[in-house]
Amino acid sequence: MSACPLCTDDGGLLLHRAPNWRLIRATDTPAYPAFYRVVWNAHVAELSDLSDAERHECVDVVAQVERVMRAHLSPTKINLAALGNMVPHLHWHLIARFEGDSHFPAPIWAPAQREPAPDALAALSSKLPALDQALANTFH
Amino acid sequence: MSACPLCTDDGGLLLHRAPNWRLIRATDTPAYPAFYRVVWNAHVAELSDLSDAERHECVDVVAQVERVMRAHLSPTKINLAALGNMVPHLHWHLIARFEGDSHFPAPIWAPAQREPAPDALAALSSKLPALDQALANTFH
Repeated sequence: MSACPLCTDDGGLLLHRAPNWRLIRATDTPAYPAFYRVVWNAHVAELSDLSDAERHECVDVVAQVERVMRAHLSPTKINLAALGNMVPHLHWHLIARFEGDSHFPAPIWAPAQREPAPDALAALSSKLPALDQALANTFH
Repeated sequence: MSACPLCTDDGGLLLHRAPNWRLIRATDTPAYPAFYRVVWNAHVAELSDLSDAERHECVDVVAQVERVMRAHLSPTKINLAALGNMVPHLHWHLIARFEGDSHFPAPIWAPAQREPAPDALAALSSKLPALDQALANTFH
């Protein structure tokens, strides 16, 4: 699968690389700056392709990233998703959602309901350096 | 939280109820008949609200449901999501996706790209009784 973009690239801003997975912050979602991804390093498509130990490791990382996101951002909700229709290489989206964001309460893939408020986006973005650092520290 | 619909109702066709979770088939997604949900019984909002043991139990169930769905349907992809913006009570969507479905390769929450093919929907629906039974048997 040399054409898989998650086999050839980190997939975003790399915050931590472990033997089995890596944590990146997405840089392709301007309306959602607080968007992280846990990418399984091996090219497997589905959660159920992992062994029991791997699956537990994967969900533990997702939950730990979520905990740090919640502590730093106090979001209205965290959205988790492993879709992979276009890139069938296991990766988890972790998205901090807020009542005023461009799609709330719809999923971010639905049509936008409003323009994101620039001040809210700026306030959120200002928290990312400390959050990125806390996430990196969590796994070191 | 007496207003929470997942505290007052099963949330779909109940296939199995365990002490901590239940498995239902969604009956509110006509374009996606092979749509299951694992609902955590307790009213918690986020994955990271679970204990380690609960989280592992939850992900093990999700993976097992996914395995049975794959065995019966051979989908192009399984989509997993825990969103909860409207109903902040932990529930996992498990959706069998196929190349010809109404949104593929976009998420099901995006605008539809085509009408679902009636024959494909009928063929998929015809597999649900056996799949429902296999899922119920898996957890008994």
